[in-house]
Amino acid sequence: MNNTINDERAAFYQRIDKHNLMPLWEQLHNLVPRQPAGACQPALWSYKTLRPFLTESGDLISAEEAVRRVLVLENPALRGTASITSSLYAGLQMILPGEVAPSHRHSQSALRFVIEGRGAYTAVDGERATMEPGDFIITPSWTWHDHGNPPQLEGGEPVIWLDGLDIPIVRFFDAGFAENYEKPVQPISRPEGNSLARYGMNLLPVRHQATSHTSPIFSYPYARTREALETLLRHEEIDECDGVKLRYVNPATGGWPMPTIATFMQVLPRQFSGKTSRSTDATVYSVVEGRGTVWIADQRFDYEPRDTFVVPSWASLRFENQEECVLFSFSDRPVQQALGILRESR
Amino acid sequence: MNNTINDERAAFYQRIDKHNLMPLWEQLHNLVPRQPAGACQPALWSYKTLRPFLTESGDLISAEEAVRRVLVLENPALRGTASITSSLYAGLQMILPGEVAPSHRHSQSALRFVIEGRGAYTAVDGERATMEPGDFIITPSWTWHDHGNPPQLEGGEPVIWLDGLDIPIVRFFDAGFAENYEKPVQPISRPEGNSLARYGMNLLPVRHQATSHTSPIFSYPYARTREALETLLRHEEIDECDGVKLRYVNPATGGWPMPTIATFMQVLPRQFSGKTSRSTDATVYSVVEGRGTVWIADQRFDYEPRDTFVVPSWASLRFENQEECVLFSFSDRPVQQALGILRESR
Amino acid sequence: MNNTINDERAAFYQRIDKHNLMPLWEQLHNLVPRQPAGACQPALWSYKTLRPFLTESGDLISAEEAVRRVLVLENPALRGTASITSSLYAGLQMILPGEVAPSHRHSQSALRFVIEGRGAYTAVDGERATMEPGDFIITPSWTWHDHGNPPQLEGGEPVIWLDGLDIPIVRFFDAGFAENYEKPVQPISRPEGNSLARYGMNLLPVRHQATSHTSPIFSYPYARTREALETLLRHEEIDECDGVKLRYVNPATGGWPMPTIATFMQVLPRQFSGKTSRSTDATVYSVVEGRGTVWIADQRFDYEPRDTFVVPSWASLRFENQEECVLFSFSDRPVQQALGILRESR
Amino acid sequence: MNNTINDERAAFYQRIDKHNLMPLWEQLHNLVPRQPAGACQPALWSYKTLRPFLTESGDLISAEEAVRRVLVLENPALRGTASITSSLYAGLQMILPGEVAPSHRHSQSALRFVIEGRGAYTAVDGERATMEPGDFIITPSWTWHDHGNPPQLEGGEPVIWLDGLDIPIVRFFDAGFAENYEKPVQPISRPEGNSLARYGMNLLPVRHQATSHTSPIFSYPYARTREALETLLRHEEIDECDGVKLRYVNPATGGWPMPTIATFMQVLPRQFSGKTSRSTDATVYSVVEGRGTVWIADQRFDYEPRDTFVVPSWASLRFENQEECVLFSFSDRPVQQALGILRESR
Repeated sequence: MNNTINDERAAFYQRIDKHNLMPLWEQLHNLVPRQPAGACQPALWSYKTLRPFLTESGDLISAEEAVRRVLVLENPALRGTASITSSLYAGLQMILPGEVAPSHRHSQSALRFVIEGRGAYTAVDGERATMEPGDFIITPSWTWHDHGNPPQLEGGEPVIWLDGLDIPIVRFFDAGFAENYEKPVQPISRPEGNSLARYGMNLLPVRHQATSHTSPIFSYPYARTREALETLLRHEEIDECDGVKLRYVNPATGGWPMPTIATFMQVLPRQFSGKTSRSTDATVYSVVEGRGTVWIADQRFDYEPRDTFVVPSWASLRFENQEECVLFSFSDRPVQQALGILRESR
Repeated sequence: MNNTINDERAAFYQRIDKHNLMPLWEQLHNLVPRQPAGACQPALWSYKTLRPFLTESGDLISAEEAVRRVLVLENPALRGTASITSSLYAGLQMILPGEVAPSHRHSQSALRFVIEGRGAYTAVDGERATMEPGDFIITPSWTWHDHGNPPQLEGGEPVIWLDGLDIPIVRFFDAGFAENYEKPVQPISRPEGNSLARYGMNLLPVRHQATSHTSPIFSYPYARTREALETLLRHEEIDECDGVKLRYVNPATGGWPMPTIATFMQVLPRQFSGKTSRSTDATVYSVVEGRGTVWIADQRFDYEPRDTFVVPSWASLRFENQEECVLFSFSDRPVQQALGILRESR
Repeated sequence: MNNTINDERAAFYQRIDKHNLMPLWEQLHNLVPRQPAGACQPALWSYKTLRPFLTESGDLISAEEAVRRVLVLENPALRGTASITSSLYAGLQMILPGEVAPSHRHSQSALRFVIEGRGAYTAVDGERATMEPGDFIITPSWTWHDHGNPPQLEGGEPVIWLDGLDIPIVRFFDAGFAENYEKPVQPISRPEGNSLARYGMNLLPVRHQATSHTSPIFSYPYARTREALETLLRHEEIDECDGVKLRYVNPATGGWPMPTIATFMQVLPRQFSGKTSRSTDATVYSVVEGRGTVWIADQRFDYEPRDTFVVPSWASLRFENQEECVLFSFSDRPVQQALGILRESR
Repeated sequence: MNNTINDERAAFYQRIDKHNLMPLWEQLHNLVPRQPAGACQPALWSYKTLRPFLTESGDLISAEEAVRRVLVLENPALRGTASITSSLYAGLQMILPGEVAPSHRHSQSALRFVIEGRGAYTAVDGERATMEPGDFIITPSWTWHDHGNPPQLEGGEPVIWLDGLDIPIVRFFDAGFAENYEKPVQPISRPEGNSLARYGMNLLPVRHQATSHTSPIFSYPYARTREALETLLRHEEIDECDGVKLRYVNPATGGWPMPTIATFMQVLPRQFSGKTSRSTDATVYSVVEGRGTVWIADQRFDYEPRDTFVVPSWASLRFENQEECVLFSFSDRPVQQALGILRESR
């Protein structure tokens, strides 16, 4: 290709540019890459490092003023986008005794995974769920929700959880709406445990019609989840990559609890030296129990309880640990499955 | 219409008869009735009356010789068909301490609803479930299953349950197969509770693929079911026909536990005077707790715990009770829904 | 087993009989057979034999008096039940020029497969479909429908079609309702071809919501079906049992056109010597084109165009023909699949 | 709030920044907007303006060198992203007589909507479809595809079509893979029209199992689509916003032809003055027939055949036209529905 052609083409590109046109052939290899080539990087946030910042944030701003007092975990390669992976948001939220995080609703779906502290609640659609470490709680799309940490006899304690939201997804599709509730706290119309009794016991009300893409139970207590893991760990073959890994389920459909976010809990047995796997759904992990090592794209990360780490799309992933470890995780798998673009390799 | 025409027609009918032909117009009103016109009648089997017969059958035949020692409840209007409704079979099965009901499998799906006694088990596909009164247990289509009542330290007790099967359905569609297992008792490959831990805790194994029309959990313990009813009873509006009524669910799909039989549990509150309803799915009830009255097609039946009664298709149904009552029931609703022929009126 | 035991048992059976109880163990092998053991027999109805009876029926009764002037094809082993298989009904219906078969609706779903004649119509829900030989037409459950054969310039001709209904199924589940329309002919609100344009062109109205278990198109013209068979016959591998076999589809779901009846069209190539297959869905065939031989449960039947034959559940089936043959068929496959009891062997 | 607090917070933000942390409360209103606030703008590309650039591109680069000779339509507010909406890509592709666009496959799904010229083909998975103006053709995710314009007797003519791809979606989820075929042109294994005969005639092969999220027919000829529109236009109520609007269907499921892109065809009748509607799925339109006016977010655009225009998420949309107009369009509606975030207002 000689220079004349190059010059002619360049001139052409300039002329069409003002008509909002671009020559595909100059970009095709970038637009249709041979394999995932996103910016997202592996990273680990140490809870020991973060915890003092949370305390400090409690002095700098109240939950009510902040609306949500959250330190957002931004992927080092995606700074300025409030994203921990290209499609998902994660943050650590703290609520102090006596505080309320006021009621609102939005198109974005959210999960809460409790990290530390007892006594706070999340209220969804007229029902409260008390939050215990290890509990997984959903605040579904377009549902009124607020959080509170009522003062206890003994004064209470800060309660901290990991928030996971589909903020980047809803932003990408330009489909977000939001509203504040007229009061900070929504009225309670059903007693705690009602949703779980109604939908979570392998029974459903006889006239129940699914009207939402989200699970009708919004709290998955850790006690039950841990018991399930324990039973399977004692008696099952261990997957060579994942240990014993379960996914949370919408009991009214058998599908994912939320249409945009998959959630998982897994136990890695003692003395586990896992095999390598990859998947196109970048995944955020929160350590529930145990210390161990994870190799992500050949980088080593040592984790301990309450740490958060992120595995990018198609990055190689391998677990190694001496102690038994329990890991909560979430990803955009439901979307990739619905779109037919999920790919895995083991 | 004169006699000549009648005679001509009669002669014609006779001539075509030998060609396996029949004139529709003489039968149209019967074949396409204005509303359900089946033979099935309301009936109640009193446990007090039946119980001695079960005892007696224990003397007359062993579980092993009988294969299944069951007294079949035949609808009074369907004698000779082994049917309690046009489409369903019901019977009371007893197994004595030390007995085994040998392993086999068949196309027919079965439910077991435990009426009396403790200590027996049902084994399905390598896993046993201990049977307690009020438990609902499934032996799915084409799955090896056997029952046993191991001798206890104190000698044990007879265990009695209600069997519900789709025998008439599979017979009607001419699609039944059966096989005996090579030994009376199948080998056990998973510990008790494994299925419930794996599938019944609002979690699923991450790589689970539904491969069957039947629920992957085969035991729904009464303790959990009763707790759900209790929670809803305390806090909910009571349905004016049904009290608080739940349906059992296949947690991997949100659908029915079996493709042919729906199962329900309901509590009628104290001082309940229900409204009338009808449905085209004839339903078999087993009384779990409480004494009450049921009006079926304007006939009065007084029931007490462990009694069985049957409500025909489209018969009016009304409950009336002073005591709190708990009722288990089953019907062919999944089939009627799949076929688009279910009709209800309230 | 000695006589005493036998006598005791017999006495016991007699005593429990009056309580509507029956000992399962005496019937278990019949109730749970090792393989399908229904009464349904193979049979063929020769059109040459039947056609004169249809003519004769036209003299004996008018379509209006008969409501539906149909000669029902009763399985030789199921006489008196209006059934051609245990679950399905078939009959040949004739409508003469100038006649109307008055409008009614019922829970039963019906198919019409046109055998002979042109110029008649079936009206469904305000739209008419003109009937041509080879067309497959549906009158869905609980939909007003009537048939007519308007007098033509040249006088017109009798139009004859095969009716297939789920009458035995709806009767078995005791779920049938029926109503007559207030007038013989329902009003027409949409032009012919409207449903096919709206739903049958691989497009759907943008706000269409499926509200029925039945296909929104009710006419599948033979011209399109024959063209599809021809294209595949010329270029495809021929299935060694079935030749080229297609199933009719509900274009709004990809499922069966009706919830209770599957319909198929197949072409057997020239010089075809098929392999044996079996299936639990007993099937009714109507010969569209060609003469050939079919072996059913080792009985030979020679067929020609317009003949009807029936293959019982699990009977062996084998085709053999010199001429190219086209066969329409229907069975209860959708039900057996929904119930998880369909079994095939090839 | 005094300056001290502000200063303290600013200092805090700086300290946490290096730990990849960000205070949510400073960004919450941007991250969870009250309504869609994306950058995408309304725009129209006049074919009269573009056409000469396509001709010119034909002189500057061959289809083979370019792989795909496409001028990408970039949204004026999304320059540099190869996106016409936040989630979709569009471009005009030209192939000259004698040229081949070489075979490759990728995770991205593509649609081709033919704008001008005859005689070219798209080959998908061993079958070719000849391209006529108005035809809608799919090249599914991960399917080998190539295009060619074989030289004709008379020399042939350039063929131009609109490409629509989910490139931004697959990039956002970081899930794209691509491969080139070993030769420019894939081998042909099935004759043209085979897929349409097999899957597009309201029939399916009797043993067909859906194995893909994409329609098994990949060509929807304009002739059929236009006939459907015409039939409905003559006889139907016209929607006050949309005229007569149909969506293309996957005939094996009744769902969308592709998992990521919805496609529509609509006719606006003569003298149409439409009402305003909005939707969160930003939509790209290609004008097939007629001249008219469209108001997008209160901006007026006058269109004529072969023009392309884009309607952003939640922008108001209103049609006005004297001539009958036919419009093809596509959007990310299947994704928004699967995610439960689609919102419409009329």
